[in-house]
Amino acid sequence: MSDPGDPFSVDEKRGVYRAIYERRDVRGQFLRRPLPPPVLGRILGAAHHAPSVGFMQPWDFILIEDAALRGAVHANFAAANRRAAAIYSGPQREIYAGLKLEGILDAPVNLCVTCDRERARGHRLGRQTDPATVLYSAACAVQNLWLAARAESVGVGWVSILDLEALKALLGIPPGHTVIAYLCLGFVAEFRAKPDLEEHGWERRQDLASLLHFDGWGRRDAARVAALFPRSAEAGTPE
Amino acid sequence: MSDPGDPFSVDEKRGVYRAIYERRDVRGQFLRRPLPPPVLGRILGAAHHAPSVGFMQPWDFILIEDAALRGAVHANFAAANRRAAAIYSGPQREIYAGLKLEGILDAPVNLCVTCDRERARGHRLGRQTDPATVLYSAACAVQNLWLAARAESVGVGWVSILDLEALKALLGIPPGHTVIAYLCLGFVAEFRAKPDLEEHGWERRQDLASLLHFDGWGRRDAARVAALFPRSAEAGTPE
Repeated sequence: MSDPGDPFSVDEKRGVYRAIYERRDVRGQFLRRPLPPPVLGRILGAAHHAPSVGFMQPWDFILIEDAALRGAVHANFAAANRRAAAIYSGPQREIYAGLKLEGILDAPVNLCVTCDRERARGHRLGRQTDPATVLYSAACAVQNLWLAARAESVGVGWVSILDLEALKALLGIPPGHTVIAYLCLGFVAEFRAKPDLEEHGWERRQDLASLLHFDGWGRRDAARVAALFPRSAEAGTPE
Repeated sequence: MSDPGDPFSVDEKRGVYRAIYERRDVRGQFLRRPLPPPVLGRILGAAHHAPSVGFMQPWDFILIEDAALRGAVHANFAAANRRAAAIYSGPQREIYAGLKLEGILDAPVNLCVTCDRERARGHRLGRQTDPATVLYSAACAVQNLWLAARAESVGVGWVSILDLEALKALLGIPPGHTVIAYLCLGFVAEFRAKPDLEEHGWERRQDLASLLHFDGWGRRDAARVAALFPRSAEAGTPE
């Protein structure tokens, strides 16, 4: 075990930034090869060590491998996606139709992350002023899981185009629990260099500098921005 | 630059798990030493490379260093915390009173992360079925930031005991934007081995196995749990 007092080595630090910058929302590159259970266990352990308001740990994890169940989730997605596609027209409709937005049947494991909004644990510490912090804690668990998966060369795709009430019924999720994420996990043929949605021309990455405010909303400071990102033309690119 | 096709080296992988397991919600250990702007820039870059629904990137970042502004935020916290403390009684009240829950004035940098729920970017892809995914995206940005900070030996504390409407007014945050997190950042005297709330007896970590379900809510499977966590008595501990 490492000592929390030791600074990260150059390689350890690079690992963290690699996971962050090389993480992808994987849909089309899943291999059917099963995930070794200990790898999946480490990824779940990472999720469980996310921060949570009041140390509440409001999450649950439902692993889904059963083929019939995944077929039903896929049918749920297909119906929701037909409704979602209907708002687009023209070239946007064409791009949308060409996007692969899930790997429910392709990935060997699906994982539903839920949040128990009323869990007694934590004794309400920190969440009286903002009950949504409970949901944010569960979202942080998803991000931990995603980065640990990347370090294990496991791809993760987040499927948000689902009728969540129907999904809750299908999986037997009790009232009071919120579905935070429905994830597909598996080894991948490749991690693409760019996000799918960027590659397909759906959206571009914003300039980070345009999202920075100094000591108050809308207060910009070009000199401070230049000091924050000294080595890169594109703000936020790691050395 | 690394190639996304290369598996993570042992050290790179350890870096990711160290960041996840050694991350702390820091309140009492901040040093006043300023953060070098390029370090802060890398941490912000990590946040900006979080996943987001439809590649929407709904976040903004307000850096707060001004002493008067931080004083006003601290007063906001103090009032909110007096109200929050009032629900506890007996020994719990004593523990609560002894907890340090923020480092607003101690940390050299405060950072407010907001979420623009109606941002046009992403063209609503993926969020028609669940508008909360926009908020989850911003929470994932906070977690990326937290882990990058840990790799840089920078502590982060999330202050959720704040009157958020008053905070929005103070920072001039426009309507339609939600405060996701108010964070304190700085170098630290130490990263504690355990979460503060565990150390002070406020709450204990749950057993991960009790939060796992297989192919449906409430379906437990001891054999699969054993396969997931083969090497550790405590589920989820990395090798």
